[in-house]
Parts: sequence; C-alpha cells; structure tokens
Amino acid sequence: MNIPQCSFPRVVIIGGGFAGISLAKKLKNKKLQVVLLDKHNYHNFQPLMYQVATGGLEPDSIAYPIRKVVQEFEDFYFRLADVKEIDTTNQKVIADIGELKYDYLVIATGSKTNFFGNKEMERNCMAMKTIPQSLNIRSLILENFEQALLTNDIEERQSLMNFVLVGGGPTGVELAGALAEMKKAILPKDYPDLDIRKMQINLIQSGNRILNTMSENASEKAEKFLIDLGVEVWKNIRVTDYDGKVVTTNSDLSFQTATVIWTAGVKGALLRGFKQSSTEARSERLKVNQFNQVEGYDTIFAIGDIATMETEAYPHGHPMMAQPAIQQGQHLAANIIRLINQKEMQPFAYRDKGSMATIGRNKAVVDLPKFKFSGVFAWFVWMFVHLFSLIGFKNKAVVFLNWVYNYIRFDREARLIIRPYKEKEPISFVSDEI
Amino acid sequence: MNIPQCSFPRVVIIGGGFAGISLAKKLKNKKLQVVLLDKHNYHNFQPLMYQVATGGLEPDSIAYPIRKVVQEFEDFYFRLADVKEIDTTNQKVIADIGELKYDYLVIATGSKTNFFGNKEMERNCMAMKTIPQSLNIRSLILENFEQALLTNDIEERQSLMNFVLVGGGPTGVELAGALAEMKKAILPKDYPDLDIRKMQINLIQSGNRILNTMSENASEKAEKFLIDLGVEVWKNIRVTDYDGKVVTTNSDLSFQTATVIWTAGVKGALLRGFKQSSTEARSERLKVNQFNQVEGYDTIFAIGDIATMETEAYPHGHPMMAQPAIQQGQHLAANIIRLINQKEMQPFAYRDKGSMATIGRNKAVVDLPKFKFSGVFAWFVWMFVHLFSLIGFKNKAVVFLNWVYNYIRFDREARLIIRPYKEKEPISFVSDEI
Repeated sequence: MNIPQCSFPRVVIIGGGFAGISLAKKLKNKKLQVVLLDKHNYHNFQPLMYQVATGGLEPDSIAYPIRKVVQEFEDFYFRLADVKEIDTTNQKVIADIGELKYDYLVIATGSKTNFFGNKEMERNCMAMKTIPQSLNIRSLILENFEQALLTNDIEERQSLMNFVLVGGGPTGVELAGALAEMKKAILPKDYPDLDIRKMQINLIQSGNRILNTMSENASEKAEKFLIDLGVEVWKNIRVTDYDGKVVTTNSDLSFQTATVIWTAGVKGALLRGFKQSSTEARSERLKVNQFNQVEGYDTIFAIGDIATMETEAYPHGHPMMAQPAIQQGQHLAANIIRLINQKEMQPFAYRDKGSMATIGRNKAVVDLPKFKFSGVFAWFVWMFVHLFSLIGFKNKAVVFLNWVYNYIRFDREARLIIRPYKEKEPISFVSDEI
Repeated sequence: MNIPQCSFPRVVIIGGGFAGISLAKKLKNKKLQVVLLDKHNYHNFQPLMYQVATGGLEPDSIAYPIRKVVQEFEDFYFRLADVKEIDTTNQKVIADIGELKYDYLVIATGSKTNFFGNKEMERNCMAMKTIPQSLNIRSLILENFEQALLTNDIEERQSLMNFVLVGGGPTGVELAGALAEMKKAILPKDYPDLDIRKMQINLIQSGNRILNTMSENASEKAEKFLIDLGVEVWKNIRVTDYDGKVVTTNSDLSFQTATVIWTAGVKGALLRGFKQSSTEARSERLKVNQFNQVEGYDTIFAIGDIATMETEAYPHGHPMMAQPAIQQGQHLAANIIRLINQKEMQPFAYRDKGSMATIGRNKAVVDLPKFKFSGVFAWFVWMFVHLFSLIGFKNKAVVFLNWVYNYIRFDREARLIIRPYKEKEPISFVSDEI
C-alpha cells in the first residue's frame, strides 16, 4: 500500500463512517501513524439518504471527501481499499490493494442490510445503505411511473404504483413520509395522465409499533402522521418472501408490487479472520469489552455498528446509529493515546442524546432524555440537528438551500433518472391508431 | 405509447435538448397536440458539464426534469423513449416503447461524439456528451490518483498522472483549464505523498489554433492563459490512435497515458429511415432548407445540432452549439403555427450573439459581434451568462453558491467517486515490511 514505515506505532482504521472519522479526527498529530482505509473516497451522511432516494437532495451534498477531512493531518494516510480479511496472527490487514501491518487495528466497517439469509428477497428487494443504492431507488421510483404510463394492463400499472417498505424503523418511516409527500405534491403534476390517487405506500412492521427504539408516544404520533399522509401502516406482520412480483407475509395478507424497499434489518459488516467466539451470531457484530477491545484480541478494537458492547442498559449492545459510533470513536482515540503512554484505559459510557425521526413536511417526533415532543417544533429541531451534523459548510448551505426551496415550492427537483436502474423491458410494439 | 388521439394535429418532437425544449415552450397551448420524446427524463446544460467532470458541480444542478418544464402545458405529452427509426412512408415514429403516428415530426436529437470510425479510440477514449459520461471522467481522474499512490512503477505512475485532451474547442479548453486548477489547488493537498508537479495536462489541437470558431485574438489569449496554468498546448498535430496505453499522432510525438478525453468531433445523432440524399455524409447531419424542413420531406423538420442549414454565412451549417439550437427551436414553433393556419413560413435567420470560453479562475475570452475582450471581466460575463441560462431558480442558486464557495476556498468538494468507473485491477499482494 506504499505506507512508509515510521518510528510511531501504526494505527489502522477500517471504515470512514461516523465511527472511523470521529476517531481519525481525535488521533490527529498524536505521535501515531494513522492509516484510514475505506471502500469509498467519501464519508456519507446516512440519515439523509432517504432524501436522495426521493429526489430531495443531490447525493454530493450528503457526501464529503475523506481526503479533505484528513488533508492537514501529519503521518496520516488514506487509501481507497476494500479490506477482505484480517490476519490476526501476523497483525496484517489484507485488502484488494495489498497487505498492511498494524500495531493497533480499529474495525469501523459499520453494518449492511440483513435479509436474514433469504436470497430471493436479497435479489428482488431494494436496499438503502449506500449512495448508489439510494440513487437506484430514486431511478426505480421514477421509472415505475414512466412505465405505468405505457401499460394498459391495469394490474401491472397498479403494481408499478404500489410501494412496499419493509421495516418501521426511522429509515422506513422517513422514506414512507417522503414518498407520501411526492404523491401529494409532485407526481400528480408530473403525471397528469395517471391517477396518482391509486398510488399506494405500504409500511410493514413486524413488531406491534413503528419506531420501536423510541418512546411509545413517538411511535403513536409517527403512526398518526403517516396515516394522515395516506400511508398504509401494517403492524405485527412479518414479510416472508418477495419473488419480484408478490410480497407474501406470515398472515394471509399479500401485496402485488414492483417495488419493495427493505429496511427491516442490518448486520455487522464483518471481515474474515476472527474467532467464532468473538462475534455475536445473530447480528454478526464483534463482541467488545468496555474499552471497545474485540474479545480475544488485545490490539484489535471495534467501534460503531460493527461492535456490540453488552452493558446493563444495553444488553444487546448500543443502538446501531450515528451517536454511539461517534462517541465510541472519540472515546477510543483517548484510550489509544492512554495505551501508548502506558496509562490505564477508561471504560466507555454512552451518553444518550435522544433520537428523532421526521415524517414529511412540518412533522417529526423527538425523544430527548428528559423531554419528548412532536409536531412542527420537533420538525425544526430535526432539521437544525441534521443540518449542523453535516460535515462542511458547503454541504450545509446547499442542503439548507434545497430544503428552503423544496419547502416553499412543494417541490423536489432532483427527480432525475441519471443512471437508469432497470433495463426497460421493451413493450410489445402497439401503434396508437385509436 | 398511450397518447390519446385528439382533433388537433400532432407534433412529435424527438429530443429535449436546447432545440427541443425551446420549441416545446413556444408550442405551449397552441391548438396542437405535442408529444416530446427523450431518452432521459431531464434536460441537461451541456456547457457546464466539464465542471461536473472536474468535481466543481453536482450533476443534479445542471440537469432539470423535463416533466417540470412541461407540467402546465395542455395536450402535451412527454414520454421517456429511445427512438430508433422513422417510418416516413406511414408517418410513424418507432421507439423502444412503441410506435406513434405524427402529423409533423421535429428531429432534435442533437449530436454525439465522433471518432471518425476509429473503433479502438472509441473503446479507449473518454467522451463527454452526457452526464453519466462526465461522472465517469470525474471518477476516472480520481481513481487514477488513488492508483498512482499504490504503484512503485514510475512509468505507470506517470501515465496515470498524464492527461491527454484531444480537441481544442471550448469543451477541451475549459476542461484543460479546470484540470489545471485542480492540479494547482486541490490535488497537492489531497495527495501529499504524490509529486503533483509531475501531473501533465496535454491539449492536442489538429488545427493551427485552439478555439478556432472564435476570433484569432481569443485563440491567442486562451492559449496564453492555458500555458500560464501549465497546460501543454500542442497544435497542428492529429491524434491517429490510442490503444489504452499510448497515444500516437501523425507526428513522431506520442503520449503514454491512462486517460484520453476526446472532444475532437461530433456528428449528428441520426435516426434510421431517412433518404441518403437528405443527410450530409461527413457530419451525419440532416440537410434542411431555410424553414428547417428536412430535404425531401414536407412534414419532417430538424433543428439544432442534427440539422445543417447551408447559408452564405455558414456554408456548412450553423455551429453546433446552444444558440442556433435555441433560435431554430423558437423560430420553428412560429413556422409550425403559421403552417397549420395556412400561412407562409418565414425563413430562419441566425442572430450570432457571440461565443465565449473560460480558462480556469478569473480568466475567459469573449467574442461579441461588435466587441471582443478577455480576462477577469470576460470571466464575470461568462459566469453571468451561464448562470442565467440555467433553467430553474434552484439550479441557479445552487450553482452560484458552489461557484462562490469554490472560488473563495480554492476548492471543489464534489470530488467523489460515487460510481467507480474502472474495476480496480487488484495489485499483486505486496506486504510492507520495510
């Protein structure tokens, strides 16, 4: 990888997400050689991806070049690399671009969509964990409507206008809200010769409430907001399969649809080379102690979604979202510095700053540790928090500008099929004589 | 295509570029049924594509949804369609999504990159006529530098940092300028462990001056600006081939490079079904009379790049750029309306509003009919004109915001490899022991 050897110990970080970046920032110029590896050359802001998928934002404005984050750091190296495996015996990282020795290794590979082993669903469902995936969803939504215009088969048209979102977590809820806004404000104008009222947005939740990581109150409010927007919310229903045409469930309920977006589960983006014992079977996350040390390894740490730290408050590990990742990254930086100074590491303690979700225009639910609220004010809080969490002034400004414009104009101008998702099935040539 | 029959005559427009859109706008609510067909669901602003390719702008901010343009028009239908052929005998358009009868047909398919039959160059060169192509160039530029970091083979590294632009027209010149700005302000910070001084930007022009459609003075100034920026300008040299590694020319000059961007020629994006006699062999454009009627057809018109109208001032047709396209579109609209009202059509007369090109920061050349100038003021004029030619307030605002930011910060934050262009050749595993 052409990383020069130097006298400082080498810390290798795998992953430039929330965890990896916040760690990297805190390790800046600290008598360490830091190597950051990522599959992409950008950090992306996952919480706003659903707006890219629904044409509200450009992908570029929620992504930020990693090299720009680390530009000024000394003894810091970024490499665009796809890491396959860790050789824990020889303390080596094995990637597509070569191997690299490490003194300390930090796994911050995050999580990926979990289809719980159902290959057919994995093949036929859309996932939304990466920017290209969000762009594929954007293209598919629009392609569906373009296609719906062309068919005279009522069933086919209906299934093209029928959207099924599996999973009632924040992503599914926010996506459903955004789709409902498109249905209300944009699609009827864009497709006057389609009856957009026939468009259906189904949100399917296996549990008995949506946003089940939030307060009961938030769940109820969010569900009400969605129903007001015309979203069909289905609870206590588990999707069993999707063959590309029909969604089957564990009830007698089924859906004919051309589009299933799967947000019903994630699992750790695990690397090869770890002991069975150090990974948690169900979620495929790495078990870590209170110092984020991976069970069974002294020099390997894991932070963020990939790590599961069992605590009293969180017996199954911290929630797989931005806050724990950021806090673990910052905390680990301090611990690594303690370590190389032969000081005692400090245990990680998660400060829950609360969580929130937005449902279309003017509506959101916010759970703060001491204070829970919803509605317009919550929506402003949501916008404020997300805007200021974006890296970089330009992204903040562009996103803000887009939001103001979209709000005033009830519009989303990024409804562009720049990279078509599906090969258009050429419709059998019918000439329009009548 | 599910277009209802109606009592008004049907005008079918193929292509939503400058020509097609300006025609469509003028045919709004005019007792005509208008059907607009395009391969893409967006209109894109070609003059700024080079900034997408060099990470200065998001693709979405130079593209605009066609459906939004025509939203309010009556008896107006847009279809996402790839037209293959015209059945001139039965007055039918034949597309991937079906057939459609027309009363009047307007070909506004624009132009595509012309490799003059050299298949190997077509395979190995990058073109920049579409947004996906610009994004591919963006990805490739960045991928080259990421790869240059990894190799110890000096020749390979050099060829990865060596850029060859073929064609000294506005596109080639503006792209060269933008690359030179990246070399100066961004790449040294992003790639501190590469010697960016070794990056070469070669602009090859077959003629004896660049920007040969502009004034001698503009050519000289532009060349000086480029040389000041460190661009190598090669004149009177014709590229003969590129095998993916080495560019050969009609002189003993050759270039070892991983990247050749071809802007050296365009040809009409011709459709099947036309008489030989009605197409101009060399440029593959449709010969039209002064009413933009395609030679040999009364009800078929062609406007913009695809049309070549031989006049005294322009014996080989008008320049293939935005202005003639826009003016022909507007003029044809008036003529079609005259036609259906049994009035005489008026001949088209091109009003040359001048042309301009920008070369990096603060520098541009502007030729107005009565007044030619260059430098900082020209650069402001260039920005002003391009900003206000963009469709849509939001795009204007976002582009302006980006420009201000990029200018103040000497930056381009859209340097993101969102869709990798090349499969990374996995480098033979070398461990870094030393």
